[in-house]
Amino acid sequence: MTKGIFITFEGPEGAGKTTVIKEIHHRLQQLGKHSVLTREPGGIRIAEKIRTIILDNDHEEMDGRTEALLYAAARRQHLTEKVVPALEDGAIVLCDRFVDSSLAYQGYARGLGIDEVLAINEFAINGVMPQHTLYFDLPPEEGLARIAASGDREQNRLDNEALQFHKDVCEGYRLVRKRFPERIETIDATGSVKAVTEIVWERVASFIS
Amino acid sequence: MTKGIFITFEGPEGAGKTTVIKEIHHRLQQLGKHSVLTREPGGIRIAEKIRTIILDNDHEEMDGRTEALLYAAARRQHLTEKVVPALEDGAIVLCDRFVDSSLAYQGYARGLGIDEVLAINEFAINGVMPQHTLYFDLPPEEGLARIAASGDREQNRLDNEALQFHKDVCEGYRLVRKRFPERIETIDATGSVKAVTEIVWERVASFIS
Repeated sequence: MTKGIFITFEGPEGAGKTTVIKEIHHRLQQLGKHSVLTREPGGIRIAEKIRTIILDNDHEEMDGRTEALLYAAARRQHLTEKVVPALEDGAIVLCDRFVDSSLAYQGYARGLGIDEVLAINEFAINGVMPQHTLYFDLPPEEGLARIAASGDREQNRLDNEALQFHKDVCEGYRLVRKRFPERIETIDATGSVKAVTEIVWERVASFIS
Repeated sequence: MTKGIFITFEGPEGAGKTTVIKEIHHRLQQLGKHSVLTREPGGIRIAEKIRTIILDNDHEEMDGRTEALLYAAARRQHLTEKVVPALEDGAIVLCDRFVDSSLAYQGYARGLGIDEVLAINEFAINGVMPQHTLYFDLPPEEGLARIAASGDREQNRLDNEALQFHKDVCEGYRLVRKRFPERIETIDATGSVKAVTEIVWERVASFIS
């Protein structure tokens, strides 16, 4: 399991994570590295089905604890079917969001408690934590403005939340970063995609060297 | 929340729980009591959708931890939408299986650990535990024989498990009963439906008097 390198990427909505990670993955492949780019639910059919329930705009009655348990369930299946086999195969696994997202979103912003949400996620991951996490730091207003400007993102239930919720997410991430200072590095994500990509590339290159 | 009375019923497959509880519910109603008979997912649409994922015979790749988290998620939604409102309304809620099933099935029989499965269920129930639990005690061989003889039960993924699994479930229940001796009472379920109904009725009548 420890043969590969497990790197996760975190941050508020619109921080540019997805675009940047694709470029990092591309560069790793060009160097001949075995890179696996994924995000939950990652094409894992059980996790996809769980995700469909979570993101259904019609499910307004969904309780926050139900949602957190469903995220943990989808995480578990994605981890066990896709991430762990890739790590055992020696891959560099780049994962767009992981446990820290649940801690910031459900644990802090939805008020379930970071400790409580960590407990169910510890059950889900059963010891498989990323060696490195890069946090894309960006004011929540700027992230939301980027989403609105792009106009090409499918709106889901989470995107419909108010700005206050996004501010709470950022505060949640601040607490999570404070809690895991050795694992999580903060990246300045206010620059251009090109600028942020270079910062991230420098960090990832150091992790794999 | 404590206005009502929350009673759960546990036991191995084929112990006759469902039939007996229906009769108990009927008798309570005849006495003019506000009785609510339910079982997870209990007609709660989000919980029903989760249950569909769990019980799909085709999902052989489902990890045990994913399954336990999904059960906890369905439990949470059923509890918050159906059980808690009924208890707040002063009802006697009769629930066919609850947390102890997960502890015996996933925690012990599937080897995930009773403590670990209890932790995610504590997150799910957030303090709403039954005041009373009746355990239908029956040798696992007899339960399986009853299921086979009736021939009218839809076979699902769990029914397909081997006898050894059912023995493990009974051993898991033994450990769970030992752990919560004040909440769980053991009922002899080897007799006829009529005989078991009378035993259960006597206990339920004492709970509500």
